[in-house]
Order: sequence, then structure tokens, then C-alpha cells
Amino acid sequence: MKTTEPNPGLQLDARGRLCHLLTLDGLPRELLIDILDEAEAHDKVLRGQDKKQGTLSGRTIVNLFFEPSTRTRTTFELAAKRLSADVLNLQVSASSTSKGETLFDTLKTLEAMQADMFVVRHEASGAAHFFAEHAAPGVAILNAGDGRHAHPTQGLLDLFTIRRYKGGGVGGPSNDCFKKLTVAIVGDVLHSRVARSDIHGLRILGTKEIRVVAPPTLVPAGIEAMGVKVFHELESGLDGADVVILLRLQKERMMGAFLPSLAEFHRDFGLTRARLAKLKPEAIVMHPGPINRGVEIEGDVAYGPRSLILNQVSHGIAVRMAVMSMILGAPAPAEARSPRSRR
Amino acid sequence: MKTTEPNPGLQLDARGRLCHLLTLDGLPRELLIDILDEAEAHDKVLRGQDKKQGTLSGRTIVNLFFEPSTRTRTTFELAAKRLSADVLNLQVSASSTSKGETLFDTLKTLEAMQADMFVVRHEASGAAHFFAEHAAPGVAILNAGDGRHAHPTQGLLDLFTIRRYKGGGVGGPSNDCFKKLTVAIVGDVLHSRVARSDIHGLRILGTKEIRVVAPPTLVPAGIEAMGVKVFHELESGLDGADVVILLRLQKERMMGAFLPSLAEFHRDFGLTRARLAKLKPEAIVMHPGPINRGVEIEGDVAYGPRSLILNQVSHGIAVRMAVMSMILGAPAPAEARSPRSRR
Amino acid sequence: MKTTEPNPGLQLDARGRLCHLLTLDGLPRELLIDILDEAEAHDKVLRGQDKKQGTLSGRTIVNLFFEPSTRTRTTFELAAKRLSADVLNLQVSASSTSKGETLFDTLKTLEAMQADMFVVRHEASGAAHFFAEHAAPGVAILNAGDGRHAHPTQGLLDLFTIRRYKGGGVGGPSNDCFKKLTVAIVGDVLHSRVARSDIHGLRILGTKEIRVVAPPTLVPAGIEAMGVKVFHELESGLDGADVVILLRLQKERMMGAFLPSLAEFHRDFGLTRARLAKLKPEAIVMHPGPINRGVEIEGDVAYGPRSLILNQVSHGIAVRMAVMSMILGAPAPAEARSPRSRR
Repeated sequence: MKTTEPNPGLQLDARGRLCHLLTLDGLPRELLIDILDEAEAHDKVLRGQDKKQGTLSGRTIVNLFFEPSTRTRTTFELAAKRLSADVLNLQVSASSTSKGETLFDTLKTLEAMQADMFVVRHEASGAAHFFAEHAAPGVAILNAGDGRHAHPTQGLLDLFTIRRYKGGGVGGPSNDCFKKLTVAIVGDVLHSRVARSDIHGLRILGTKEIRVVAPPTLVPAGIEAMGVKVFHELESGLDGADVVILLRLQKERMMGAFLPSLAEFHRDFGLTRARLAKLKPEAIVMHPGPINRGVEIEGDVAYGPRSLILNQVSHGIAVRMAVMSMILGAPAPAEARSPRSRR
Repeated sequence: MKTTEPNPGLQLDARGRLCHLLTLDGLPRELLIDILDEAEAHDKVLRGQDKKQGTLSGRTIVNLFFEPSTRTRTTFELAAKRLSADVLNLQVSASSTSKGETLFDTLKTLEAMQADMFVVRHEASGAAHFFAEHAAPGVAILNAGDGRHAHPTQGLLDLFTIRRYKGGGVGGPSNDCFKKLTVAIVGDVLHSRVARSDIHGLRILGTKEIRVVAPPTLVPAGIEAMGVKVFHELESGLDGADVVILLRLQKERMMGAFLPSLAEFHRDFGLTRARLAKLKPEAIVMHPGPINRGVEIEGDVAYGPRSLILNQVSHGIAVRMAVMSMILGAPAPAEARSPRSRR
Repeated sequence: MKTTEPNPGLQLDARGRLCHLLTLDGLPRELLIDILDEAEAHDKVLRGQDKKQGTLSGRTIVNLFFEPSTRTRTTFELAAKRLSADVLNLQVSASSTSKGETLFDTLKTLEAMQADMFVVRHEASGAAHFFAEHAAPGVAILNAGDGRHAHPTQGLLDLFTIRRYKGGGVGGPSNDCFKKLTVAIVGDVLHSRVARSDIHGLRILGTKEIRVVAPPTLVPAGIEAMGVKVFHELESGLDGADVVILLRLQKERMMGAFLPSLAEFHRDFGLTRARLAKLKPEAIVMHPGPINRGVEIEGDVAYGPRSLILNQVSHGIAVRMAVMSMILGAPAPAEARSPRSRR
């Protein structure tokens, strides 16, 4: 596959509205905040008994997964169904690719079936950009994770979660909260598209300090250029942090080369109850899931009172509904809208 | 997985209403009858052209199958879709469990996606109880078969079928019909969750005589304590029976240890046309499907005039709709309701 | 499986209306044209933003695929969902058949779940007929490809595409256009159910000349009896053609016996830019997809200005919606109807 460099302009149409979501990198601050506010409205609907909105009725959303991920696919499927779209789940690998069809042919064929949006996950960085560059006008691409590059809806739901729990107060959430926060991202940063999307989003919203905490083998060279501080030791990395984002250790990608052992990683970088006790009392703990119990996090910590891991899952549906409906030009119902956030 | 002993109280809320369905064991007679009556109303809708009801619109039902079963999953999927719920099918094995996620993590993650009900099938007895014990308030568990333990919706549809064909008459179905019936359950009782659920249901409704007919190797020790009579010989076991429930021989579980051969089983316990002719003229034949032709039943018998096997399949959809809508607090439309059954 | 000879009468009810679609062979010309006209109405709806019609709400359509084909299944799934039917996707192979269930048992069980229509794909010629012969009254069978026998919806969408691009003009499409057309079907005719359905459809509509262009090893013996001219050389086969229908080379079926090599096939029968340039200027190029780039067609030709390959995909949805709604007795909305075609 021919991959291409990110082109941030690709994501916005001539009037500055979102038409694809490929990466948070380069998105305007106001647009990020609009998405978070829209997600607040959807989250409100989801807390009721009837979680269905008719807004995308008659539209078709295709989950096009070249990398298997039941969990991620499920969140997009639910988001689309709750907006009343018709949803197609295509796990591509055996079927058409084995018949010699190229990525381009797959895109064009599904477009011809009048799909409105493709949710794309692919192991190659740049796959979503490739689709966006070749998509017909009016067909939207939503990146659900491409290689090590980006996972923008995960980045958005992390921002949403931080804003909700650190930016509360009278008059709606405050986006200025980020200017006072120290956020530590801990673990396998090297292989993590989540870390990259988090860092981009946090910077756009003006986060005071972003830290990356990992053994040297798991930090990409030159990451300081993204505006982060690197720590190779957990205790100092967590000192004074308001938000701790743990990353999933991709055990299947470790292959002995990056880590001496999982036990050693846990000893040096795992979040245990003992370490949790040393955090600031109001610090929050996040993780994109699924967790590796006893590796990057202890089970008790994952389900403890300071963990927002399950909240993140809920917010993920709301954020995906927001992105889908904004791109397809169908906002949440007026009665669900909160006052806009303080900007 | 830590499994736990059945706790019948778990299934009913403080006001005695069904909140999970895990086993028929311990359910009140009145509640069983309410489910059967509710299923009658759904069955009436299903016999029309438009089989859709809007009652569960906006609710999310997750089919969580740890054991593959297209057929059973299909019946729950159809039931949920015909009630207008959003349905997610998750075949769990490779995906999340291979990533080290525990059963508990899977439950909590899907709960966080605002699922209202989980239809759970698992090879371990007690899995559905485990889920029900750990489910958040307002999240319902419906057992679609756990190990050898229970398959309550199959038990209910068998009761429904018997009541319809043996309890008819003026003024709606009579629940007293069971007091006059002799029911013979034939085949691999040892491995059968269907047999256990049937026996519990039949006892609650006061069935006159429940028989278990199988070779000694396929009868669990001490089953007499469940209130059944054991027969090791088919002819005497069927003598005077009003209802014959054949069980599917789980060929893949036999492994040479329990049976000399399939041919021998068929010779001694298979329902043939010759044996059918010796039954009482009004006796009915049932089987949970899929049938093993030439093993526990001859094809001609399965599709003969006294077989209710396909009726059972239809009733299964109605029964599952009844359970789903009762648990989620949304009854069938008034216009579909028949007068209540005679109690 | 016991297969049976096609029985064209099976497809029409006593009043001559379509009740199954198994093959185009033997269908009345007027009925074919009615389907194409109905598809025009659906195509019009599909070009709008809201592609959903409520016409089959409450009906159940089962995609029963014994042969994996994500692409074909997707087109039927989308067609059914856009008509608001409940859709079940069943990929049968491992699950029930491995449990010893026969084709007949599968049909009867799914019928008992009150399915209204089965879309059947099977590797055995005659499978769809088998289902239609055994289906209960009111249950419809739609053949989505059976062995080498037939793929009638593909045939219909090819006719639809030809009529639209060759039969245009004032007053709606003209069905008489076929009387002036020379159509060349190129490639692996031997294994192609598409070729058979195309030939039947083209003959019924009175096509002037139908050609089959392939190496001798890939032409079925006696195909001249179907009313086609056979060419073993590409240049003469394409000379004067108005429509070129390329077939997919089933590489997995070649196994060395039929072809010296793919490269040789491409050299002798592949549609290249050079060969395209020699066609009549208004000739159109079609292919059922997915294409084998560099085998039967060059990528540039497939996406070139004379190619209608992606249009065929779009038309395929409209044609399938037409067949589904006509069989289930629910026509497209009046406002979408064009004037009838000129007959």
C-alpha cells in the first residue's frame, strides 16, 4: 500500500467544517471544543432509557476493519446504531483481499454501494489518509486506528474525560482547566497511536505539562519535539501529576526485543496500589483498555475509586456519536444540548 | 473463572419481578405462567405479516457467546430485533480473551457501553450466575446455556409447547393440564442442560410423572432427587407417556467413553417409526434441535404429524421476546393479549 | 444434496407473479422489464440522502451463505436494510452442518423462525431450486449464486446497466435497444454463473448478437445451443461490439488444468488500454467484480471513462431492492416512480 504523509487540510472543508477525522494533529482548538460539547449532548441522551436518536436514519456507515478488534468495532457500531444509521461490519482480510482486490478497489466498491462513512482500522500508518485522499466527495473517513500513527476518537474521549473530571464547576465545563494540568502518559509509547493522539489533543488545548514515562526502549526517538518531557523512572514521572494515562502493553508486539520481561515492566512501571497512594489525592487514572492486569496496572487500581477507565468507555460512545453526526451534518437534538462550555 | 452456586433470589427483585433469567429452579409457579401467557401474546404478533414491535426501541441487547452456536444466537437475535432493540453479536474467544481480558472485564466494559441486557452462553456451568452477581443495577443477564447447568428459555419453550398442545380447550390454555401428564425425557441426560431446565419447569407446574430414559452411563448419579423416575429401557420408559422429549446426543462429547457406538444407541434408544406406533395415539414428540437423523430420531419421525419440533422453534422466539420484554419492563401490546390462562 | 433440474414454473405463482428468483431462464420478457423499471425507482431513492424506505419493516430476510462472499452478501444486506427488513447473516459451514444438520433441516428450522425470504448462495448448482421446492408457502428463495448454474440478480443488474447506458433517450429507457446491440462476454465462461444468467437475460430481451470470447478450454461444450457465437480470439470477438462484459477469472479454480498461466491469459484475453482503443468509440466495459488487475483487465481500464464497473455495483443494490420488494409484495413509493419504460 502506498501511504502518504498526513495532510491536515484534508480533514476540513472549504468552510472549515470537519469532513474526515484522521488525526487530531493540526485541528483548530475551537473545533476540538465543539466536538467535546457535542459529545456532552450525546452523553446526556445515553444516560436515559431510550438511547436512540433518528438523526442518521437512511445513512450507511461501514466499519471497515483490516485489523481485528471486536471491542473498538463495537463502540463504533453502537454509536452508529444509536444514531439510527444502517451499519455494515466488514472484517477484511481473508475475503476480498485474498481475492486480489486492492485497498483502492475495496473503497471504490463500497462507495458505489452508497456508503456515507467508512470507519477504518488498519495496521499500516497512513491507511486512513490514503482512503480520505481517494474517497469520492461526500464520503467521509473516520480513522479508528492506523498503525502507530493515530487513534483520534480515543484522543478525544480522553480529553472529554479529563475535561469532565478536572474542568467541572458552575456554568458548564471549562476548557481552561488544561492550562493547569500535568498529564503523565505511562508505558509503551513507542507503539502507541493512543499516546500520539493524546499528546496532539492535549497540546491543542494548552495543557501545562505533558509527560511521557517509559523505559528508554519504549520511547520513540525525538518525541521531545512533540512538546513532551520524557521520564525513564516512574516515581519522578508521576510526581505532581493530575492525570495518569496508562497505555496498554502490546504484549504480542514485544517479542522479547523491547522488554526483559513482563514482570520486570510491572515492577518498574506498573501502577500498583502502593504507587497510587503516592499520587496527588485528586489525581485521576485512565487507560484505553483492555487492561493487562498485573502488567501495566493492578486489577484493584483499575476498578478503584480514582480510576475512570469505565467512564472512558461510556464517553467513547458519546464522542463517536458526536464525530459521526458532525461530519454527516446532523447535530444532536436541541433538548439534549447543555450550555456551551466556557472557552 | 470463579463460579458460584445458583442463588434463586438473584433472579427476582424486591417486588418479586424477574430481573435476570438464569435457571427455572426456584421460580414461582405464577411467574412461570405469566411468562407463558406473555409468550402467547408475542406468538400472536409473530403469526402476522408485520412481526415488529417498537417496545424495546433505544435499548441495547448484547449476545455474548463464549461457545459458538449460530442457531441459538439467531433465535435471541431475532427476538431482540423484532422488539426493535439494537443488537450486538459478540462471539468471544479469540478477540478479547486472547488479549488477557477477564470475564469480569468484558462484562464491565460492555456495561459501560450502556448495554441493557446480556444474553450469555458459556461452556462453564455457573457463568451466567457469575455475570448476574457482578452486573450493575439495571443490567439484566439472560442465560442462553451454561455448561450442563441450565438453558431456561429452552425449558420455557418446551413448557409453552406442551401447554399449547395438551392444555387447550375453551377459555384459553389450562395450566392444570400438567397434573395429568406423563413426560418422558429420552437420551443423553448426563450432559444436558435442556433436561435439567425441563425437569425444573415441569415440576414447578405440577407434572404428574417425569421420566428420564437413558442408558446408565448417560444418567447423572442421584437424579431421582430431582423428582424423576429413571428408566434404562426405552419401551417401558415410553409406555403410557403423553409427551416424549428427545435430547440431542452430543456426539462431540461422547468420545467413546459413554457409548459403545451411535448405531447401538440408535438401536436401543432411537425413536423410530415402529416405536412411534406403540405410543399413545395422542402422544407428542419434541426435540430441542438440531436433530441427529438416524441417531436419537429417524428423519420421518422428526417431520411426522406427531412431531412438534418445528413448532418448538417458533415458540422459542415468542418465549424469548416474552422474557426480554418482561425483564426490561415493556409488555406486549394490549391488542395482542389473549385472556389469561386458566390457573 | 439431491439437486433437481430447474423448473421455471416454480418462480411464478398462479397469477404469474414472481415468488422466487432462481434463474432468468424462462422468465417472461414483461416480468424482466417490470423488475428493471422497479429498480429504476429504487435507484432514484438511493441517489438521495435518505436511502431508507419503510416498505419491508417487520419482515425478516435471511442471508444464507454456504460459500463465503463478503461482497455479495453485503449488497443483499444493504438492499434489505434499506427496505427496513430485519436481516440475519448466516455463514453456514462449520456451525450447523458440522453438527450433522442437513440443508433441509436448516431450511425448515429457519422457516420456523418466521423468515420471509432466504437469500441463498451455495457451491452446488441447483441448491436454490432445492430450497424453493421445499420451502413452505409464503417463504421466498432468492438465488445469490449456485455453483456454475445461475446468478440472476447479477444478470439483472447487467441488463439494467446496459439499458441505462444504451437505451436512453426521451421518454424513459427503451427496451428495444437490445435489438441493436452486440454484446461480447469475455473470459472464463466455463465456470461462470454470471455468463449463463447474462446470456439468458440478453436473449429474453432480444439482443441482436451475443458472443462468447474465450480460449477453448474455458468454453462449455455445446454453448452454441444457448444462441451465442463462440470466438477463440479476442480481436475478432470484440470487433463491432457495443458492450464488453469481462468475467472474473476464478484463479482458485484454475489449478493448472485450464490455463497455461495467468500471464498468457492476460496476453491473449486481457482488456488493455491498447485493445480498448480499438473498440467502437461508444462501446462500454463491464465486469461483475472483484476485478483481477492485470489478469482479465488493466487497472486503468477498470477505472477509465468507458468502464461502468462501479455503476454496476450501485445498480446491484437497486435491482436487489426491486426483486425483494416485488416478491414480498411491496412496491417502491409512488413518488420515486418514473414513467414506465418504452416496451
